[in-house]
Amino acid sequence: MGAAPDFASRREAFKDLLRAAGLDAAAINPGGSFFYLTGGSFALMERPTVFFIRADGPDCIVLPDLERDSWARLGVDAEVYAWRDEEGYADQFARAAQHCQARQLGVEPLRLRLLEVRALERAFPQSELVPADDLLSQLRAVKDQCEIEALQASVSYSEQAFEATLMAIVPGMSELAIQHMLMQRMLDTPGSGDLVAPLVLTGAKSALPHGHTDETPVRPGDPLLFDFAIRAGGYTCDITRTVFVGHASDAHRAFYAEVEAASDLALASAAPGMTAGDLDDLVRSRLEAGPFAEWVLHKTGHGIGLDVHEAPQIMRGNDTILQAGNVLALEPGLYRPGDIGVRIEDNVVLTRDGCRCLTQSGRQLRIVAVNP
Amino acid sequence: MGAAPDFASRREAFKDLLRAAGLDAAAINPGGSFFYLTGGSFALMERPTVFFIRADGPDCIVLPDLERDSWARLGVDAEVYAWRDEEGYADQFARAAQHCQARQLGVEPLRLRLLEVRALERAFPQSELVPADDLLSQLRAVKDQCEIEALQASVSYSEQAFEATLMAIVPGMSELAIQHMLMQRMLDTPGSGDLVAPLVLTGAKSALPHGHTDETPVRPGDPLLFDFAIRAGGYTCDITRTVFVGHASDAHRAFYAEVEAASDLALASAAPGMTAGDLDDLVRSRLEAGPFAEWVLHKTGHGIGLDVHEAPQIMRGNDTILQAGNVLALEPGLYRPGDIGVRIEDNVVLTRDGCRCLTQSGRQLRIVAVNP
Repeated sequence: MGAAPDFASRREAFKDLLRAAGLDAAAINPGGSFFYLTGGSFALMERPTVFFIRADGPDCIVLPDLERDSWARLGVDAEVYAWRDEEGYADQFARAAQHCQARQLGVEPLRLRLLEVRALERAFPQSELVPADDLLSQLRAVKDQCEIEALQASVSYSEQAFEATLMAIVPGMSELAIQHMLMQRMLDTPGSGDLVAPLVLTGAKSALPHGHTDETPVRPGDPLLFDFAIRAGGYTCDITRTVFVGHASDAHRAFYAEVEAASDLALASAAPGMTAGDLDDLVRSRLEAGPFAEWVLHKTGHGIGLDVHEAPQIMRGNDTILQAGNVLALEPGLYRPGDIGVRIEDNVVLTRDGCRCLTQSGRQLRIVAVNP
Repeated sequence: MGAAPDFASRREAFKDLLRAAGLDAAAINPGGSFFYLTGGSFALMERPTVFFIRADGPDCIVLPDLERDSWARLGVDAEVYAWRDEEGYADQFARAAQHCQARQLGVEPLRLRLLEVRALERAFPQSELVPADDLLSQLRAVKDQCEIEALQASVSYSEQAFEATLMAIVPGMSELAIQHMLMQRMLDTPGSGDLVAPLVLTGAKSALPHGHTDETPVRPGDPLLFDFAIRAGGYTCDITRTVFVGHASDAHRAFYAEVEAASDLALASAAPGMTAGDLDDLVRSRLEAGPFAEWVLHKTGHGIGLDVHEAPQIMRGNDTILQAGNVLALEPGLYRPGDIGVRIEDNVVLTRDGCRCLTQSGRQLRIVAVNP
């Protein structure tokens, strides 16, 4: 990969947004935004860790004493308030409050837990906790060059593992066996870190958008849906392909063709300047005008990056204007209960005048295990 | 495995505890407790899902419409308030509030996010959110037979993968290469689901209790610390071993012997009837009375189960009385910065009069890659 992330510049950019929004500081616990601003990955367990980034003046962090060294290695300029299990963390949050003097404190509703909320309420009794996820999304949704490289690597590694897996499928294998095979192939790539078990659903189970992979065997004629990703450099893609085992019925081919057309439309249409809601409306209207209109279950997509679902949500009513540098998972799908679900999910980066597809695996109907 | 989990009985037992504590209901979002009570695993992303379990009367759930089928398959008797992306979730939370009529609403501070907190505050303006983690811990900390079987399977699969990995280590391999090898071996076992990247730290990095695995190569004479687990049936063990590559210096042997003695003491002492704090005090006092007292950094351990760190915390000052059926990770360690860290972490189930060790990998000093 080329460029290295510039965490200090990201913090400066976020401070500008805090000032513009009238927030004195933001309280960020481990997760995507924490990594985005500091480069740090810490576990979110029974020990609270909160980074306080201030609109003006030096930052500070409350963290378990155990993490002091890991934090120091990040080279972030911030006062450190470390606590030990025996003492508890209340005193260190109080010191952070003294340091920050914040009336308006930005927080992330999707990350901050009640544990940290209560610690903040006690330490900052005069402060208001204000959602700051929109501010962070403004930054995080527009990827820089090294983020796009990481996402391209995530896509490429994931597809490499997927293609190798398709070669090895034979009827009678269970979803779980196929899932394991795909995870093995993922480990053969240079993608690293935790491995999220891919979703593998066959037959009528493919119609459950969030179904569970189990011992169900794949049979000739079955659809076989894969939703998969491996991280690279902290970033995750989000890819779905639906293939058929041995052969596909005409009815299933017609069903697939509708989703493929919606996918074509999504990839041809995604561009800066339109709203996220308009993109969803365009793609869903295509599906809703077809013969399987009643089997549309979900929005067209979402941003990807450090979190597998992040801003912008490609959803009707979302007025966010798409920008060059957005990286999106576009995933039209149709789900007919008891019969078949098809989803085709590609990852694209928005360019100056359209989008560039990061995924390369074919989107047209594909038969695997033709000669078992 | 033998017995199947009885989720309905668990809900009844929890309702008894809610009544005894004067709580009208508890609001549980996806995670360990949600699985414990329902058998359901749902992603915790941008779409809130909250199960309302009531002290008296029927339960209900607010969930994304997309998850309706997955929920139905669990067979939990509860009113379903499903919401679609376009509508948002506020109305369905309001219906749940109408259904529950709760003044005192139990919540889990380590799970509930500000997103759900705000949704509850709006829907239940008259209600008080009361921490109910202690009530859930009372149940979850005492494992039933099928939970102990799952944890034993988790331990056995993890050790199987670990032993196979040790055989293949040669000096010059990087921490990351060894980590990948261990993950490959984990996938060879029947343990399943997401794979948490094991911690592999060599040389002086072993002294960072929560350090990060990277390209550092293992060299002869280095300590090599592994902290690893694979899930089985939803349950996770938590095992650490520290081995030496090729040979170990006398100084490192003396350092290791101190931790081994503390580990022996922990396994010989853990028993029902004592407090969690007393067990920590006993083990840490042993380390603090030795020649490396200043390098004690953390408590002796924690419960394991559906979460990798759960109650009871084996920590000074914790008055929780240990009970038969508790499953604990006991992990004495010493960490001398710039030189060496040693941690030995075993998993035990408390029996009527002591404990039974689930881990079988040797705890004595071990040299790997003797003849590279």
